Amino acid sequence: MLNEKNVCLGKVRSSIRELFEYGKARKAEIGEDKVFDFSIGNPSVPAPREVNDTIAEILKTYDPVQLHGYTSAQGDYSVRKVLSDYINTRFGTTLNADCLYMTCGAAASLTITLNAILNNGDEVITFAPYFPEYKVFTEHAGGKLIAVDCEEDTFRLDFCKLESSLTAHTKAVIINSPNNPSGVVYSEEDILKLSETLEKYSAKYGNTIYLIADEPYRELVFDKSVKVPYIMNYYSDSIVCYSYSKSLSLPGERIGYIAVNDKMQNFSDVYAGVCGAGRALGFVCAPNLFQQLIKKVYNVTSDISIYKKNRDKLYNALTEYGFKVVKPDGAFYMFVKSPEQDAKAFCERAKNYELLIVAGDDFGCKGYVRISYCVSPEMIERALPAFKKLAESYA
Amino acid sequence: MLNEKNVCLGKVRSSIRELFEYGKARKAEIGEDKVFDFSIGNPSVPAPREVNDTIAEILKTYDPVQLHGYTSAQGDYSVRKVLSDYINTRFGTTLNADCLYMTCGAAASLTITLNAILNNGDEVITFAPYFPEYKVFTEHAGGKLIAVDCEEDTFRLDFCKLESSLTAHTKAVIINSPNNPSGVVYSEEDILKLSETLEKYSAKYGNTIYLIADEPYRELVFDKSVKVPYIMNYYSDSIVCYSYSKSLSLPGERIGYIAVNDKMQNFSDVYAGVCGAGRALGFVCAPNLFQQLIKKVYNVTSDISIYKKNRDKLYNALTEYGFKVVKPDGAFYMFVKSPEQDAKAFCERAKNYELLIVAGDDFGCKGYVRISYCVSPEMIERALPAFKKLAESYA
Repeated sequence: MLNEKNVCLGKVRSSIRELFEYGKARKAEIGEDKVFDFSIGNPSVPAPREVNDTIAEILKTYDPVQLHGYTSAQGDYSVRKVLSDYINTRFGTTLNADCLYMTCGAAASLTITLNAILNNGDEVITFAPYFPEYKVFTEHAGGKLIAVDCEEDTFRLDFCKLESSLTAHTKAVIINSPNNPSGVVYSEEDILKLSETLEKYSAKYGNTIYLIADEPYRELVFDKSVKVPYIMNYYSDSIVCYSYSKSLSLPGERIGYIAVNDKMQNFSDVYAGVCGAGRALGFVCAPNLFQQLIKKVYNVTSDISIYKKNRDKLYNALTEYGFKVVKPDGAFYMFVKSPEQDAKAFCERAKNYELLIVAGDDFGCKGYVRISYCVSPEMIERALPAFKKLAESYA
Repeated sequence: MLNEKNVCLGKVRSSIRELFEYGKARKAEIGEDKVFDFSIGNPSVPAPREVNDTIAEILKTYDPVQLHGYTSAQGDYSVRKVLSDYINTRFGTTLNADCLYMTCGAAASLTITLNAILNNGDEVITFAPYFPEYKVFTEHAGGKLIAVDCEEDTFRLDFCKLESSLTAHTKAVIINSPNNPSGVVYSEEDILKLSETLEKYSAKYGNTIYLIADEPYRELVFDKSVKVPYIMNYYSDSIVCYSYSKSLSLPGERIGYIAVNDKMQNFSDVYAGVCGAGRALGFVCAPNLFQQLIKKVYNVTSDISIYKKNRDKLYNALTEYGFKVVKPDGAFYMFVKSPEQDAKAFCERAKNYELLIVAGDDFGCKGYVRISYCVSPEMIERALPAFKKLAESYA
């Protein structure tokens, strides 16, 4: 009688959320500092001081009717102008304000984009491991998510597998780099090859295949040598779904944007589809106060160096204890090979040492676990003996 | 190739928006104070001082990681607790925090609710005149919107017409009181009769018919004698879609909630459907800063008395000039009978006097026009001679 799909979605708590709730209960039982919760991808570093200072300044100086009023559905023009100029300066693109559409964060960017381009039965490819909500978003928009496994051990793109998954029904490919959960950044070589492949298959089937980059982690890259290629420079039919949730530690405030590549052939239809989908989904406009904030702090980030220190400490320790770890170049996740075949069993055993980590199964990748290191450096320090004992339990 | 429905939606500018753009251009041409724009429903009264003061206080006193972090998808528990307690005190209901789901405003409240309960082919009834996005929201959720005309002249509910429109496919009825665009508040008598009718037809067809109250204008009622019945007290299978956009003059910030009646039989499925739909549409959570704000200013409103003064001045003048006006009890819209059959022609003629008003055709009701009086009292004063001349042109 009701919409069974959405009723089920609402009833099934994700296993990450389950684990988080378990952790809360366990902390109450044995003490906050005795439980090591590496389950959730919630930024642990506060928003930079500029965020609260700028909001306070905006509240003092803007006309309140304007400030809290509707913006155009696409977002305030002046905000979009500043952001498109910044993107052009940074990446050498030629976007204008009307290529951007302000959103309530990356999830909204993705649902709006998918609803703009998908028809019932269309296929969307992504690379496993992947953020599980891609499936939810794609299916709501009438599509089917096809997960293509990455290369084992390196978690780079596997082009053989990709080619065998591309069909006449493929409408889009979603990439997420830096990747949740693997932490891998796709190289320029891979993005070039991906672009060539999608061009080839778009031509082969006579259908445009859109490349969607889900970029909440773009700014979370720890070494200068690591570059995150900007897909618009490689592939015309591309759309960037950006969010400030992680870079500015504002995940609860819901602010981001969609950038549609002005180089694509049917740009105006795709952009219109984005506007129409945003309207049909009920977004109206992105929160105005946060639009005005972003206009002023678009090139600031939280103190990313803390995540880098966390990564280095944890990576070095875990490899020393004998774990096989994919060294993450970005985001704040580490993907670790399970010492036994069943990663879920490994996660269960970790609980005996009060370590809360998530099985890769939840991200479409068996045999691995995700460790979120967006936690305090002190917790990592305290957790290391537990990881050591966990490793020894497999010796 | 793309999603044609959403592409079309994005391309067709609403005629309200067209008129607004025309007004902007005309103002640039002949001067800001020479054009009388009554087209848009954007609050003209600033948010109460408490809003900016409270945000500033929150920024100073809350931990930033908590403040800007994710809340649960339903919204911060403590916020929902305060709001459900307030609703209970005010309306005598028995809601708890887990009956509420915080949203990005009324549009989101509606799309999430409709996606929770509708399956393909379900029918949703509303009463014309109605907010045109109901059609967009219903169709995106797979349903079909059926508009039932209100009684002529009074714009009260027409139960004869309602009964002949209820079918085995009717899944929901949306009411909007105070109404956009008529300004009418449905009486307790009408709500009682509506509840009885829906109970009768739910039983007749063996399908629950949900009653959805879209309530962005609940607080905008000008006379103490006018009561807006709270539907939960009359009908069990009811859902309230609330927004702070108009009451607190925060339309651009997107904050509101869905309240699901705890008295309904399959409450837990409906609430789960709401959670699932919110997830599938990509909402994640309502903006946290505004959730925390609402927790503290939930019982405050902007200075509504200004709208009342606007209503009285405009209503008295227009009736004096000979227009037939439905006296609005709430919201900030006035519905005026067109002196010629074609309301669009009337609106075109009004433009000759620099008056920008919207034809009722856009709200599913021919022969009337909507005048938004959420404007400055000074503009109304300046516009009166123009309305007078417009009336005289029909003499």
